Amino acid sequence: MSDVYDKINDLTKRRGFVWPTSECYGAVAGFIDYGPLGSMMKRRIEDVWRSFYVIQEGYYEIECPTIGQESIFIASGHVKGFSDKMFQCPHCKEYLRADHVVEGGGIAGASTMSEEQLSAALAPITCPACEEVIGTVEVFPFNLMFQTTIGPGSQRSGYLRPETAQGMFTDFQRLLRFYRDKLPFGAVQIGKSYRNEISPRQGMIRLREFTQAEAEIFVHPDEKDHPRFARYAGYEVPLFGQTQQQENSAPLVMTMREAVDTGIIANEYVAYYLALTHQLLVRIGVKPDRLRFRQHLPDELAHYAEDCWDAEVRSDRFGWVETVGIADRTDYDLRAHEKQSGQSFTVFIQYETPKRVQRRRVVADMGALGPKYRGKAKDIADALATTVPGPDGITVTVGSEQFFVPKDLYKIIEEEVDLPGEEVRPHVIEPSYGIDRMCYAVLEQSYDEEIVDGEERRVLRLPPLVAPVQVAVFPLMNRDGLDSIAEQLTHTLHEHHILAEYDDSGAIGRRYRRQDEIGTPFCITVDYDTREDQTVTIRDRDSMAQVRVPVDRVPGIISDLIEGKRSFSTICP
Amino acid sequence: MSDVYDKINDLTKRRGFVWPTSECYGAVAGFIDYGPLGSMMKRRIEDVWRSFYVIQEGYYEIECPTIGQESIFIASGHVKGFSDKMFQCPHCKEYLRADHVVEGGGIAGASTMSEEQLSAALAPITCPACEEVIGTVEVFPFNLMFQTTIGPGSQRSGYLRPETAQGMFTDFQRLLRFYRDKLPFGAVQIGKSYRNEISPRQGMIRLREFTQAEAEIFVHPDEKDHPRFARYAGYEVPLFGQTQQQENSAPLVMTMREAVDTGIIANEYVAYYLALTHQLLVRIGVKPDRLRFRQHLPDELAHYAEDCWDAEVRSDRFGWVETVGIADRTDYDLRAHEKQSGQSFTVFIQYETPKRVQRRRVVADMGALGPKYRGKAKDIADALATTVPGPDGITVTVGSEQFFVPKDLYKIIEEEVDLPGEEVRPHVIEPSYGIDRMCYAVLEQSYDEEIVDGEERRVLRLPPLVAPVQVAVFPLMNRDGLDSIAEQLTHTLHEHHILAEYDDSGAIGRRYRRQDEIGTPFCITVDYDTREDQTVTIRDRDSMAQVRVPVDRVPGIISDLIEGKRSFSTICP
Repeated sequence: MSDVYDKINDLTKRRGFVWPTSECYGAVAGFIDYGPLGSMMKRRIEDVWRSFYVIQEGYYEIECPTIGQESIFIASGHVKGFSDKMFQCPHCKEYLRADHVVEGGGIAGASTMSEEQLSAALAPITCPACEEVIGTVEVFPFNLMFQTTIGPGSQRSGYLRPETAQGMFTDFQRLLRFYRDKLPFGAVQIGKSYRNEISPRQGMIRLREFTQAEAEIFVHPDEKDHPRFARYAGYEVPLFGQTQQQENSAPLVMTMREAVDTGIIANEYVAYYLALTHQLLVRIGVKPDRLRFRQHLPDELAHYAEDCWDAEVRSDRFGWVETVGIADRTDYDLRAHEKQSGQSFTVFIQYETPKRVQRRRVVADMGALGPKYRGKAKDIADALATTVPGPDGITVTVGSEQFFVPKDLYKIIEEEVDLPGEEVRPHVIEPSYGIDRMCYAVLEQSYDEEIVDGEERRVLRLPPLVAPVQVAVFPLMNRDGLDSIAEQLTHTLHEHHILAEYDDSGAIGRRYRRQDEIGTPFCITVDYDTREDQTVTIRDRDSMAQVRVPVDRVPGIISDLIEGKRSFSTICP
Repeated sequence: MSDVYDKINDLTKRRGFVWPTSECYGAVAGFIDYGPLGSMMKRRIEDVWRSFYVIQEGYYEIECPTIGQESIFIASGHVKGFSDKMFQCPHCKEYLRADHVVEGGGIAGASTMSEEQLSAALAPITCPACEEVIGTVEVFPFNLMFQTTIGPGSQRSGYLRPETAQGMFTDFQRLLRFYRDKLPFGAVQIGKSYRNEISPRQGMIRLREFTQAEAEIFVHPDEKDHPRFARYAGYEVPLFGQTQQQENSAPLVMTMREAVDTGIIANEYVAYYLALTHQLLVRIGVKPDRLRFRQHLPDELAHYAEDCWDAEVRSDRFGWVETVGIADRTDYDLRAHEKQSGQSFTVFIQYETPKRVQRRRVVADMGALGPKYRGKAKDIADALATTVPGPDGITVTVGSEQFFVPKDLYKIIEEEVDLPGEEVRPHVIEPSYGIDRMCYAVLEQSYDEEIVDGEERRVLRLPPLVAPVQVAVFPLMNRDGLDSIAEQLTHTLHEHHILAEYDDSGAIGRRYRRQDEIGTPFCITVDYDTREDQTVTIRDRDSMAQVRVPVDRVPGIISDLIEGKRSFSTICP
């Protein structure tokens, strides 16, 4: 029995959405080619993402290299800790991911097991590759970064980035200046990331080379109220929080205002991007009843993260699939790069009014210091001013010399000073999207079959906004001038930036089915009446309803339909 | 003295166009970050490219992985031959590219020298890194592909692609089916490519990770007349052909029709994409007087290429820089993949009417064959039918046995048959664009300085189509409601998909200068009159002229100005 996955797989290969890569040499697991239609759909989904993050939110996009030098990933922790636990089957010599095989063997909690625990759990399980009982095996970590070498000779290590995020962190100071030294600000990136998965077997869901869209929003650590929270305060989202998971109850549907007020979501920033993500995923074609937000449990939450939620989309074959992650990463990343690089990753925040603070300061008695230290007295006095006094005196260093200054040679005065501001290390809110998983979710959920006039109709019910071909234009007959009218209309639609496909081959019914299968939302037919009255029919993919309209109104109508400014049923002849 | 390169470098760093990558760890040569404005400009240039190749030409975009398996690059020749000649300075141990150092030493023709010749030429030259005389050194090849390993254990080699082209070749059969088995068709790709340059020192001109936009157009080998040639037949382009280079004369300016007819350009396909490239480069902001097309000389032309031209753009610092390459690659690539993979890379082309051909066929004399070969007679007769006869008889193989059949056991008949069509291996026309070099060219050529009111004005005269910020909106004062009118207008412009930047800080003059420096073509000021009569001023970057228009006409006017539908001087109050 083929499930939706198999059907989608067949359709997407056959119609040019997704192909195995370099198939003529035997495809490589974990890599795919986006064919003509898939690549177009993917770009449209990326553009919807930009309409939210770049246009609505005002976060500029940057573009960093996919190859990064080693220091970046030492700082980020990827060199040391970005690995999966692996074993080699002693029978078939296949390398396999230990936790996946243990889970496949029906044992829960594999993702948090130690290497020893996994090894013990694997022994009685049969190898999924050769079906022998595994027996005694060693489980060891395998780093998931692709490694390479930059330049000749020196053997300078480079890694293909496992996430786009690090580029926004290492550019922090440049970004801060671009945004004129004010918090909050954000930067986004859409681009390739790489994870050298051990044995990827899930098509578009687990890729070794994939596209991420990530936003890093830098906020004041004490100001996690989103300035535009009102936009999503009343927006309802299904929340599968820690409690619901632990109690095995259904997700709670609640507004973002409520979720923050009751403490289910840590702060307004996280809640804001949860709601925005819900809106974005629904807009590209994810069904609300197949979408939930699952909070990370205490044992899976990264030690530094304050809160983290995954947008999960339900797939027929793969169950709930993590598709977006939204985390409050605190200052973990900036602190890590600060430590590794020795550079500053803070912002000077000026107080609205200078803050008056009490301060103790050491003031040297120059009358006593002068005779004792002579030419060095001034330097010693300066050094004293910046130290903290000990019980009997102060040791200061001047040049390479140390001096112990007894406490009768200085006074400690209490004073009030006005501090103009302070250095603050921002916290980072990170919404991180897996574009390929979004593409798969949209394809799977838009796939439909129905019986029309006794025949099966396969249709991708893609939202017009992401459908690769936006409109098809058919001449009823390939003659009598119908073809040239249809060609001219296709050309006019192109000039309006609408992707129109001209098709004159085969019966009209067959042409409709061809377009239905690739999700083209509208088809226009030029027939003999067109020559008389300059009208054409527009046919709606989903309802199969048709309406006759003047040909010169077509570009405007199609634009409105694609942008969702009007629905098909409102079109009048 | 700083030249334009230094000025551009300073401006692009300071204003967020291009940054050194992961600067906090010491930037790595050959890699750059596109900052917020650079990334936006780059995407706009890519979109102009798409408007030509995807919309105008109708070639669909695909997206293949950047990591490819080894077989691809064995077939393409990159594993064996994609290397530069390198040496290590015996004094400072720096690795350097031999031909560049020899050329820098004032010796011509280094690019075609052998390793031995380069070694000899290097000896008396001083090392550009340490300035010692180089002396005796060995010159050896260094492969420019970044190598990595796919998956654990197996040590399966992978390479970062050195060009996007191979993906279109390996997907040939899938593409052919997508285009319903008809020639010509094309596929394009915009994406990252990688070359592990030995010692890159030219900023955006020589990157180890760069963006290419490539089109691969598959044509019938005997049909190199472009079906839409009329579009560019009269288009004039400066051609620096082989003869002009050999005679050291100026480029010839001639129409594409003339260039093909006189044989300077090999065929209409190559000429068509030369003209299209000229139009495209000028549209993004390359000045026609800094643009020429240079034909590859016989000794630099790849052995398989029928013709190849580089679009060269003149840079103040780097001279004529190769920015686009347009080549007729014949069937070299498809043939290479066919050989390496054993798969078919041909198209079955049906003749318009079946072709009647004379054919000789061997017909066995079954009466004689039967008694001699008994049970094998039928198989031998079938084998005979597909062979070519020798002078005395035919040797055929049946199963694992060989039989010599003397010529008196068969007849040769001449017959006429109707062939329905033939298998054809297409030729490939490849226009290949270096997006980063295009970005640099546009920045350099748009940079201008002038004295206005006794002060220097730095301005990027970017075409509105590629300027990152399309319009800036200023409230004259940050109060009295001017700010909220300006904010509302900014918001309205965003809804019209126009990137508008709101700026209320500093004197108006300073705000203008800030926008001039990043190339914003139009600035809108909201002042006290706006409250009275709902008009605002639009100021043109280049002429600094201002015109007052009703605020509700602004989005339409700005859209038209950006898309080039009207010019600033035609705007009436």
